[in-house]
Amino acid sequence: MKLLIVGGVAGGASAAARARRLSEDAQIILFERGPEVSFANCGLPYYLGGEIAERDKLLVVTPERLQSRLNLDVRVRTTVQAIDRSAKKLRVRDLVSGREYEEPYDKLILAPGAAPLRPPIPGIDLPGVFTLRNLQDMDRIQERLGRGVRQAAIVGAGFIGLELVENFVHRGIATTVFELQDQVLPPFDKEMTTPIAEHLAAQGVTLLLGQSAEGFEPAPDGLLVKLKSGQRLAAQLVILGVGVRPENKLAVDAGLAVGPRGGIRVNAHLQTSDPEIYAVGDAIEVKDFVTGEPAQVPLAGPANRQGRIAADHIFGRPARYRGTQGTAIVRVFERTAALTGASEKILRRANRPYRKVYVHPTHHAGYYPGAEPMTLKLLFDPQSGEILGAQALGGAGVDKRIDVLAVAIQAGMTVFDLEEMELAYSPQYGSAKDPINMAGFVASGLLRDDHPQVDVEAVLTAPASERPFLLDVRTPQEFAAGHIPEAVNIPVDELRSRQGEIPPNRDITVYCQVGQRGYLATRILRQAGLRVANIGGGYLTYRLWYPHANGSTGGIESSRSRGKQP
Amino acid sequence: MKLLIVGGVAGGASAAARARRLSEDAQIILFERGPEVSFANCGLPYYLGGEIAERDKLLVVTPERLQSRLNLDVRVRTTVQAIDRSAKKLRVRDLVSGREYEEPYDKLILAPGAAPLRPPIPGIDLPGVFTLRNLQDMDRIQERLGRGVRQAAIVGAGFIGLELVENFVHRGIATTVFELQDQVLPPFDKEMTTPIAEHLAAQGVTLLLGQSAEGFEPAPDGLLVKLKSGQRLAAQLVILGVGVRPENKLAVDAGLAVGPRGGIRVNAHLQTSDPEIYAVGDAIEVKDFVTGEPAQVPLAGPANRQGRIAADHIFGRPARYRGTQGTAIVRVFERTAALTGASEKILRRANRPYRKVYVHPTHHAGYYPGAEPMTLKLLFDPQSGEILGAQALGGAGVDKRIDVLAVAIQAGMTVFDLEEMELAYSPQYGSAKDPINMAGFVASGLLRDDHPQVDVEAVLTAPASERPFLLDVRTPQEFAAGHIPEAVNIPVDELRSRQGEIPPNRDITVYCQVGQRGYLATRILRQAGLRVANIGGGYLTYRLWYPHANGSTGGIESSRSRGKQP
Repeated sequence: MKLLIVGGVAGGASAAARARRLSEDAQIILFERGPEVSFANCGLPYYLGGEIAERDKLLVVTPERLQSRLNLDVRVRTTVQAIDRSAKKLRVRDLVSGREYEEPYDKLILAPGAAPLRPPIPGIDLPGVFTLRNLQDMDRIQERLGRGVRQAAIVGAGFIGLELVENFVHRGIATTVFELQDQVLPPFDKEMTTPIAEHLAAQGVTLLLGQSAEGFEPAPDGLLVKLKSGQRLAAQLVILGVGVRPENKLAVDAGLAVGPRGGIRVNAHLQTSDPEIYAVGDAIEVKDFVTGEPAQVPLAGPANRQGRIAADHIFGRPARYRGTQGTAIVRVFERTAALTGASEKILRRANRPYRKVYVHPTHHAGYYPGAEPMTLKLLFDPQSGEILGAQALGGAGVDKRIDVLAVAIQAGMTVFDLEEMELAYSPQYGSAKDPINMAGFVASGLLRDDHPQVDVEAVLTAPASERPFLLDVRTPQEFAAGHIPEAVNIPVDELRSRQGEIPPNRDITVYCQVGQRGYLATRILRQAGLRVANIGGGYLTYRLWYPHANGSTGGIESSRSRGKQP
Repeated sequence: MKLLIVGGVAGGASAAARARRLSEDAQIILFERGPEVSFANCGLPYYLGGEIAERDKLLVVTPERLQSRLNLDVRVRTTVQAIDRSAKKLRVRDLVSGREYEEPYDKLILAPGAAPLRPPIPGIDLPGVFTLRNLQDMDRIQERLGRGVRQAAIVGAGFIGLELVENFVHRGIATTVFELQDQVLPPFDKEMTTPIAEHLAAQGVTLLLGQSAEGFEPAPDGLLVKLKSGQRLAAQLVILGVGVRPENKLAVDAGLAVGPRGGIRVNAHLQTSDPEIYAVGDAIEVKDFVTGEPAQVPLAGPANRQGRIAADHIFGRPARYRGTQGTAIVRVFERTAALTGASEKILRRANRPYRKVYVHPTHHAGYYPGAEPMTLKLLFDPQSGEILGAQALGGAGVDKRIDVLAVAIQAGMTVFDLEEMELAYSPQYGSAKDPINMAGFVASGLLRDDHPQVDVEAVLTAPASERPFLLDVRTPQEFAAGHIPEAVNIPVDELRSRQGEIPPNRDITVYCQVGQRGYLATRILRQAGLRVANIGGGYLTYRLWYPHANGSTGGIESSRSRGKQP
């Protein structure tokens, strides 16, 4: 068996290592364009920010180590120019010597990755405009930083964009981020990004949403970025983080099938349209695990697993890739945002029915010092309760809850299973009723029709004639500090005695601060024969959707400065 | 419906709140012997240590709040003396007025909890000898601490014992803990507690294993504790944390069935042998979720869920309790230990076949600062790969991995599912190959017979004639710093060229530091036709089992002071 692998970072290096463990006899050649293999690309922003002090830490394994330990033939600074599928050989070019040669294969794995998009706008090739994909890009940016940067502009407020923002601010650089969409972190639903946008502002970051760069101009001291709005922004350093495109040229030239967004098409065994050729990693089109739709999801974890699976299948195992959930996480200064499975956007696009709930618990027992507020959004099937997706925001413990829900999605579990989950509790780590249990209670209550809930955005965008009677069951103090317009205040503890004040023939929508008192109020009024529903997650959910409404701000940013959530 | 509930802490308070939400009309009376309901008993040690500064924080909800919000009739300082099952009424005594009265019920929920064991040893009732169950106990201990305590003795190194140790050391008290068993944290398997014992010693705690208190004697300055060994230990404060017994007197007097260890017998709906009477919380016998055997598992999370389920069933819902996994966690100074599902001890007792693996990864990407070592032990079915139990030790991220595995056990997932798990990765939170994936790879490799593994304790306790050839594939430097006796050193990178040094007709056992190089060595030798198996988790696993062997110590305590794990 002669196995050739094109690309030596995540998927390619994993495939090579797995292949060797499966076969001592196979001849395995790994081609990599760059000088390094298997580097930690998720660490690049933190080297630029100084958190990772040694560049060598980013080299997970050297070509020499792969050679000595795994007996791999590693050829760095080498590009593969073309695939001759009928003759089953590659045309290869050694970038150092310039020598070109052919290399025949029995099986071929393509792991070329994805390249940062460089939109064709004027000035994009000026010095000072960078993208960040590999260590060489990082070195170039680091060199520019070393010559002094007071102002930086980040184009794109996705994961890598916000990671760069954080690291530049840590270096004392005045940083502006602009994003064409009307929210940061586009994989999330918009309302869930409100607290992150507020947090960026609180850190002194200038955030311009709905803005794109229309051009770059040289300036005496660096660059001017021309915005869509006509504004001009001075910066000594610009980084483009506007997405990636699959490196599919080799595949396309060889006539392999690609999807509409350019990802190399593969089957469940990761074989391309030529069964002798496999493809893995950021270059391929995967199946969305929840919707079953094709998707491009550039993530390191799935790339590693795909590499392993391709090698397994080549060596005769029945391995299958089950699709990608899109589990991802990002730290933005002192906040963490994470998600798994489908968002509302994706479910709407896929025409998949869903319901949703929000909870706003603390990450561990409130009585123990250091409890941090969290917002958890859960999306699920309206009939079966199957969990379709989850998004979480907060600080400590966000990663844990999203991982738990990622496993629940993988297992096909329902919201009723969340009620039962027995998670580790002592006051430093969780609560006797964990945020996961709470989300399960709220969602199960909705599906069992014990706890009817309405979405705040649906209530507030309904025509005036259909607007329900809006009842705020918090304390008068909370009500005075900010409430939904037109709401009437009757504290939950007085509700039993003041039911006469509620119109008997109107639909009633109840809310409190986080949803719990609203739930009790819903139960009380419903048993009294009224048509009532609760706003899931209460006033804090309202503030996610309407962050600029009057009254005290809600959401995570401000709930931190508050005491105990009532 | 008239519902009476005996006991108002975790299960009782949850049942009462759920019952009210299900029925506004029900008459609900909650009897509680103490002055408080629903207090945070898991927080008591941290108030004594000063981490929780305000006593009020421990009161989750007051009787007044339960009354005003949930319209409950809460009767504190009230004991229930007897159940008259035929007449369906209770005999009740108001502890303040001394008044006794009868209270009829339609349904009754018993949630009396469990009381700390007080073994009948001489001097147990001396002042200075305490147990810790409720706020009153806590207040008494706090009062004693306030009068000056230089030396404290904790009897029992279970969860609460070690939490008290930590808090007393934080107060500057010289603390000794003794435990009758030969390990701390008895729910864990012994080898997994080795690093915790080492860590206690490193914090200056005197830990005496295999020791029990045989008596207490008054001394001019407090007490003398008489140990089994004959030693006498001076202490001004002694706390007994040797376990709890179900408060079953009311149930037993009423003729309700109890299990062999005293837990009140219940069915899946939490009905006792009298279907009008339910029981929940620490007082009941539960079904072990993994083995199906009866068990006593006093935990707050399950107690809360049981309260909810009992109320659901009383109000006509088909709710069932699925059994208890025993998921638990404890912080011991800078370490975290957590477990879920069955231990080896439990599986052996239940005669359930199993296999196991150990992995020793870092809690997040090693290239990012602050990666903490972790040890994860996974137990699984040798045929199906179903996950039966897990134990983890380390610092940050231990809670997350145990929660993920708790969900996997709940879902009936296998080790093959762990390979596929798509968990949230960025360098602050995990790795592209998470510790969970790693454990899945190692366990799946074992079951697929790609990666034969042996248990180190089985190898080293085998008769000399059956001992395999022991091959250490680490570097000569690592070998010199400590190795398993009789092992021969051939570094993995030289293995292909030095195979001639290995006896061709003997069983071979390979090991490295954490198992990964040993895995590769196993693959190389196996494909060369040799009979070979790897020691799962390598030398670090050996050091868990043999902490006092010669050479550098292993385990978590010392791997922290080491650099990168090779």
